[in-house]
Formats: sequence, C-alpha cells, structure tokens
Amino acid sequence: MEFTLGQVAAILQGKVEGDEDQKVSRLDKIQEGKQGGISFLANEKYTSFIYETDATAVIVSNNFVATKPLKVNLIRVDDAYNGFTKLLEAYSMMMKSSMVGVEEPCFFDPSSHIGEQAFRGAFSYVGKNCMIGDSVKIHSHVHIGDRVKLGDNVIIHTGAKICTDTVIGNNCEIHPGAVIGSDGFGFAPQEDGSYKTIPQIGNVIIEDNVSVGANSTIDCATMGSTLIKKGVKIDNLVQIAHNVIIGENTVIASQVGISGSTTIGKNCVIAGKAGIVGHITIADNTTIGANTGVSKSITKSGTTLFGYIGFEMKNFLKSYSIFKKLGSIEERIRELEKKQ
Amino acid sequence: MEFTLGQVAAILQGKVEGDEDQKVSRLDKIQEGKQGGISFLANEKYTSFIYETDATAVIVSNNFVATKPLKVNLIRVDDAYNGFTKLLEAYSMMMKSSMVGVEEPCFFDPSSHIGEQAFRGAFSYVGKNCMIGDSVKIHSHVHIGDRVKLGDNVIIHTGAKICTDTVIGNNCEIHPGAVIGSDGFGFAPQEDGSYKTIPQIGNVIIEDNVSVGANSTIDCATMGSTLIKKGVKIDNLVQIAHNVIIGENTVIASQVGISGSTTIGKNCVIAGKAGIVGHITIADNTTIGANTGVSKSITKSGTTLFGYIGFEMKNFLKSYSIFKKLGSIEERIRELEKKQ
Amino acid sequence: MEFTLGQVAAILQGKVEGDEDQKVSRLDKIQEGKQGGISFLANEKYTSFIYETDATAVIVSNNFVATKPLKVNLIRVDDAYNGFTKLLEAYSMMMKSSMVGVEEPCFFDPSSHIGEQAFRGAFSYVGKNCMIGDSVKIHSHVHIGDRVKLGDNVIIHTGAKICTDTVIGNNCEIHPGAVIGSDGFGFAPQEDGSYKTIPQIGNVIIEDNVSVGANSTIDCATMGSTLIKKGVKIDNLVQIAHNVIIGENTVIASQVGISGSTTIGKNCVIAGKAGIVGHITIADNTTIGANTGVSKSITKSGTTLFGYIGFEMKNFLKSYSIFKKLGSIEERIRELEKKQ
Repeated sequence: MEFTLGQVAAILQGKVEGDEDQKVSRLDKIQEGKQGGISFLANEKYTSFIYETDATAVIVSNNFVATKPLKVNLIRVDDAYNGFTKLLEAYSMMMKSSMVGVEEPCFFDPSSHIGEQAFRGAFSYVGKNCMIGDSVKIHSHVHIGDRVKLGDNVIIHTGAKICTDTVIGNNCEIHPGAVIGSDGFGFAPQEDGSYKTIPQIGNVIIEDNVSVGANSTIDCATMGSTLIKKGVKIDNLVQIAHNVIIGENTVIASQVGISGSTTIGKNCVIAGKAGIVGHITIADNTTIGANTGVSKSITKSGTTLFGYIGFEMKNFLKSYSIFKKLGSIEERIRELEKKQ
Repeated sequence: MEFTLGQVAAILQGKVEGDEDQKVSRLDKIQEGKQGGISFLANEKYTSFIYETDATAVIVSNNFVATKPLKVNLIRVDDAYNGFTKLLEAYSMMMKSSMVGVEEPCFFDPSSHIGEQAFRGAFSYVGKNCMIGDSVKIHSHVHIGDRVKLGDNVIIHTGAKICTDTVIGNNCEIHPGAVIGSDGFGFAPQEDGSYKTIPQIGNVIIEDNVSVGANSTIDCATMGSTLIKKGVKIDNLVQIAHNVIIGENTVIASQVGISGSTTIGKNCVIAGKAGIVGHITIADNTTIGANTGVSKSITKSGTTLFGYIGFEMKNFLKSYSIFKKLGSIEERIRELEKKQ
Repeated sequence: MEFTLGQVAAILQGKVEGDEDQKVSRLDKIQEGKQGGISFLANEKYTSFIYETDATAVIVSNNFVATKPLKVNLIRVDDAYNGFTKLLEAYSMMMKSSMVGVEEPCFFDPSSHIGEQAFRGAFSYVGKNCMIGDSVKIHSHVHIGDRVKLGDNVIIHTGAKICTDTVIGNNCEIHPGAVIGSDGFGFAPQEDGSYKTIPQIGNVIIEDNVSVGANSTIDCATMGSTLIKKGVKIDNLVQIAHNVIIGENTVIASQVGISGSTTIGKNCVIAGKAGIVGHITIADNTTIGANTGVSKSITKSGTTLFGYIGFEMKNFLKSYSIFKKLGSIEERIRELEKKQ
C-alpha cells in the first residue's frame, strides 16, 4: 500500500514540511532509510542520521530544529515516537483487515459456520460443527478440528493446528505451527513395564486477547479444560501440559515448559526456558527467571524466583557469586585445617 | 455420538437407577457436569457434588448409599473408577474407528499401498512406494514421504511429517506437527571456517506402541537407523538426534534433548527439559530428573540422576541445600580466620 | 536409483574386483550390509565384517589385503573413506536434482516468479510477488508468504513456513516445520496490567549456505531485519528472537534460545539448550557449553563459557567439583568450629 505524505500527515494530525505528494509504502529505521520509506526521529542519539537518511520522509516532534540543511521531507507532530506508533498500528490494522475472501482449494465442512469479513487461505481445513466469528483470518495450511469455537477477529497463522473441541475467544492470535489441543501426556503403567494410553477427552479454552507463539504446544485436558485466561501472551516453542490454568495477563517467554495440572496466577512473568513441575500453584505477580526450575507452590504474591531449583533471586545471586569462587573457599578451609 | 443410559449400562455390565432412555453424549467431571454428560463418583472428597451436579447420569460403585435426595440418574457398577475408565476407552476407541474414508483433495501416489478401514484427511500427502497397514488414520496436512512403511492401527495426527524411508510399527500414534526422519545435524568443518553438509542417508525405525508428542523432532541416522523401540512414550517438543537408540518402554517428558549416537536403556524415565550428550550409553531403569544434564554414560541399572551436571539425586539435593546458604558458609570461614 | 558396480567404479575412479554388472541401489554400514547395498571398509576395527557381510560390494583402499576368502565384490580406490564420502555426495546430489516439476494441487500466485529446474510439491503455497531462483525445491505443505525472495538451489522441506518479506540466499536448506519470519514477541504493558501488541513490521534475512533445523523458529524484526549470516548452521527446535544477528559460520545446536536484539559473532559454537539473554553481544569464536546461560556480553574472542550462569569453563568445572562435595565441606567447617 502506498500513501502520500499528505495522507500520512492527516492520519497523524501533523504537518508536512516538503512535498505533500511524494509517496511512501514502507516504515524504515532512520539509519537504514531508503527511497519510499518513512522513518521517525525520537531519540537524540540518532539525530545525525536525519541529515543523511535516504528515506522519503521523517516524522519529527514539533520542537525539532534542524542545525544543517535537510534533503528529506518532514512530518511534524506533537510527539514523534507516539506518532510513529500510531502509524505502525494503522499500517498493521490495514494489512490485516485487507485479507478477505477464500483461496482455493480449501476444505470447509458444510456443518460449520463462519462470520463475515473472513479470510480462508488455500489448503486450510475446517472440520464439522465449528462456530467461527466475524473477521477471522484462517491462513494457509491451518487445521481446525471438529466442534471448535473461534470468537471475532481471531488470526490463525499458517500451519497452526486447532484440535477438536478447542474454544478460542475474541482478538486472539495463534502463530505459525502452534498446536492447540493435542492429547495430554497420560499413560498408566502396567505390570509388565509397558504403559497404556489414558484417553484425553478434555479440551483447551483460550479467552480473549491471547497470543500463542510459533510451534508452541498446548495440550487438552484429560477431562475438563486446559485454560488460558484473557490477555495471556505466550512466546515460541512453549509447552503447556494438560489441565494447566494460566491467569490473566501472564507473559510466558520462549521455551518455557509447564507440567500437568499446575495453576499459574495472573500478571506473572515467566522468562525463557523456565520449567515448572506439575500439580502446584503459583501466586499472582510472580516473576520467574530464565531457565529457573520451580518445584514447589509459590504462595506469596510478588515473589521473584531464580535458580536451578528456584529461590529468592537476590539470595540465589549471592550463593552463585560464592559458587564461582568455591575453589578458593576450599583452599581457605585447607589453610585453616593446616594451622590447627 | 449419543447413547442411552441403558446402552451405557450394558457396556459396563451395570444397572441403571433412573430413566434408561435418557441420552448422554459427553464425559464430564462431576463438579462440572452438565445436561447430556455422564460423570463418575470414585473419591469420597467429591461425594457432595452428586447431589448438585447437572450431569444426566453418574456412575457409582454398588456400595454407594445416598444420604440426601438425588435428582441425577445413577449407573451402578462393581467399581466406579474402573467403570469410568472402561467407558473412556470404549468412547475413545469408537471415536477413532469411526474415522474411515477419504477427504478430498488429498495426494496419494499410485505406487503406494494402504490397507482397509483407513482414513485419509484433506491435504494429506502420501509419496511413492509406501506400504501402509490396516485401520491407519492419516489426518489432514500429514506428509508421508517416499518408501515409508506404517503398520496397522497407526494414527498420524494433523500436520505431522513422516520423512522418506521411515518405518513405523503397529498401534503407534504420532501427534500434530511432529517431524520423524528429518536430516541429522551433521557438518564437516572446512579449513576456511565454513562447514560442509554431510549427507544423511539413514532412516528412523519406530517399533510398535510408540507415541511421539506434538512438534517433537526425531532425526534420521547419518547411516543405518535411529531406533525407537516398542512402547516408548515421547512427549511434546522433544529432540532426538541422529543414530540415537531408545530402549523399550522408556518415557521421555517434554522438551528433553538427546544428542547424536546415544543409546538409552529400557524402562527409563527422563523428566522434562533433561539434556543428554552424544555418544554415551544410559543403563536400563535409569531415572533422570527435570532439567538434568547427563554428560557421561550410566552403567548401573536403577540409577537416579539429578542436577545441572547430573549425579546421584540425594547427593545433589544435599549439595544444593548447602549451596542455598553459601553466604553464611563463607561468613563462618571468615569468622574462623579472624579467630586465628 | 540403481547403478552397476562398473558405474560406481567409474564415479570413484576405482577398479572392480568381481562382477561389474551387479547392481546396487543403497549405501549400507558394513556390519548391516544386505543384498543390493554397497559398504566401505576404512577402519581396521571393522575388517572382520568384510568376510561376512551380505552387501553386494565393499569399497576398500588399494592397500587392503584379504586374509580369508571373500564372497563380496570389491571396488578398490586410493582411500576407501574418501571414496565413500564422494559416493555419498554424488548420491545425495542425484536424489535432490532429480526432483523437478509440479505436483497438483498446489498454489502459486501468478504475480510471483520461479526459476528453472524447480520442484513444487502438492499443497505447497507461494503468495504474491515472490522472486524464487533456479533449482529451488519447495516440498509439500510449504508456505511461502508474500514478497519472499529465495536464491538458487534452496530446499524448503515439507511444512516449513517462510513468512512475508523473508529473504533467503543461495544453497540454503530449511528443514520440515521450521518457521521463518513469525512475529517477534513484543508487547507494551498498559496501566491496567494488560499488554498491547507492538506490530512487527521487519523481516528475516538469511544469507547463503544456511541450514535451519526442523521446527525451529526465527522471528522477524520489530523493524529492520533479523539477520542470519552466511554459512550458519541451526539445529532443530532452536528459537531466534526478533532483531538477532548471527555471524558467519556459527553453529547452533538443538533447543538453544537467543533473545531479542542480541548479536552473535562469527565462528561461534553454541551447544544444545544454551540460552542467551537479549540486547548483548557475543564475540567471534566464542564456545558456549550445553545448557549454559549467558547473561552478559562476551568481548574476548575465543572465550569458552559454561554453567548455569556461564563463566570460564575450566573455572566452572572446578567450582562444580567442589559443589558435589559441599556436604563434606560443611562438615569440615563444623569440625574447625568445634576445635576452637
């Protein structure tokens, strides 16, 4: 999509200094700006680039004063950073809403229903008795199993798999290759050392405004529901086991693993690669550090955990600082022993 | 699928107390029971729910005695938990076996053979010269490469990829997005610092009754076979490198990684996120704790390992308990030094 | 593909001892050789197998002298190992280049361009305005988004997803299920505890000779580009976040995670499961051990890091050896305290 600088200024309620009719079709970093791109200048550190950039235009704050001649067009706004963010959102919104229609071939069981302004990509699959809301974008190679419910404005990216009976709220985004509702890992040990599969007949419920990252996996419940509450943000390659519950607005970084039947509170932050055992409860507002192992319930809101088996972060860092010099610690003990 | 309570009682060899003709189509937890669902009561803790549940029926043991009026239908059996498990299996079996036929469009090379009672979903792909057994379910978006062999009753879930020359036994289940037989990670360093790809011409052999979790990856051997023996259960997002051998009935939890050419014994349990280096051997009946690193062969059956570089679990926990108070340990040494 | 031993000898510039007209279609390990396979003998340890193998032929070095009667055909070359490697490469090259043409149904937007000698598998998808080079192999279920550029001789394996605006150089190989160019994990915290999605409008640039493993994920930049330089080799289930830069010929093993905006130097080796925090810089030639956490920039080329929070490997191992006996360390302190 192309816009004239005049059109951009109108969106931002700003003013063009330069040629209103020049066109931009791309957002560029100011230091990498090229013809046809529009940048912004919000951080003084980057001021020098405005005199060199090949971008077609730069968004600046009203108080910007050039100290050298400028070859670039300017769009002046109250606050350059806010202006740019606004432009970013407008651009992203337009890109998304412009996808409407059906690419062939695709598969849609006639017992299912989909709302208006929908997109269904080539090789997408929608099974039986699904209820799908308005403005839903189902990209290529997406699988939607039987009896799935999707709210409005949901985006299911290419190759994501939404298994049977999953329920997803409004404004959710499921990124490429994610698997929602795969069977939980449940096996009953038999006397001969083998294992028998325990049928997994529950589902996954995802509330509004949730994001699930690329190639992440969320298992269905053995019975009942694995539950991801509203506003939860999940990064790539995360594993969430059967019957887990994640509280509102909790953020989970890449490669985290949460074992079965654990309940996580709301507004928690779980850093990359952390692992949480099954059947425990984590209080609201807990922060769990990168690669931290959590083996017991956290009952106090606001706890910050870190470590191989996590404990209070500042204590862990103290212990680890001494761990690093354990060689000299042993040496000091040897000295003391000698002197006796 | 709907059943009358009379039909359910017949399956369970039990007796209906209430209306035999009422229908159920779903298995519910007793505390979440809704009209059309059937629950069970096996744990006294949940007894109060039987008087409140909205489920259509509850399976109870013959010795259950109601102490208040009941609005729900009962099905009495010898043992309520066993009865429910039986129902679960019957339900799961029916769901699976009811999938028969071919959804279009799908791709099936005419040089390949598939047995009876098969299902092939839309956009599934079967390459050249494959031999596929009876009652195999190939879901939507599954890729099966050339010369693959699948036994009977295999389920390949949506979007799983079974690469060229893979062999899979009977009763295996490959969950969504799993990749079986991708190229091993083999590169020969060159004098200029670059790497040259070593062609990976081996395959993966999976024996009977194996389960592979969603988005897990099992690489083919450089030459010969990566081998997953019968009864192995592998969770989601697990990595198994080229030329690994996993012994019978070993269980591998989510996000575990096993490096190239390592051999794991039978009846091992490997907890989530554990990592095992290449070219070692792990004895039968070894238990490897969560996030444990294994850097050396384990020769003694029944070993339990835990820790960043794993050693005997009870010793690790002892060391870690002192690690947590290393601050005070150093303080005590300082005191001793002062007193000299 | 089948070759006579005469043809194989011609490729290897070697000499057949036995029946030139016998045919082989497979490369076997000597200890597992079967009729129709060709093996090699390069390591004395395996010499005994040459008298027993059922392979049709064995490649041996010119200086090999049989000490017992042989039933197998021989191909004599200067160096058996080099000969076999040459054969491996020839075989692998032939397998790849023999895939040409289009399987139906597949999706290819008419605004896109693809070069000669291409393969496009069934259910592959190529979006709008893509520029794709010569001899590119796009396997089944591959998704290629709008405006993607692919160089020559690129192989995109089954089910890999190349998102919008991605640029990939020559001779790259993207393994099954990998996701290139998914949205970065960027959310702005709001006053009510919820998060707002920050649009991710950058892309991923992958230079020549890069390999990306099965089910790995590489996020696009928030703005600008996530950059994977030439010769980088990435294993399975690796996460590379937005705006990361990876230097030339760096090797990254399975399940590694690299957080946003971090820059990795060239010729680094990053072992399995290592995790690197965001916004840091790692010097050239750094070696990062398995499961190592990296929390600070590394400025000195040639550093070797290891540990939960990584430091110089040899120091870590010293500290860890004392950690293992912390129980007795505390005991020694207690003894010293008693004796005062």
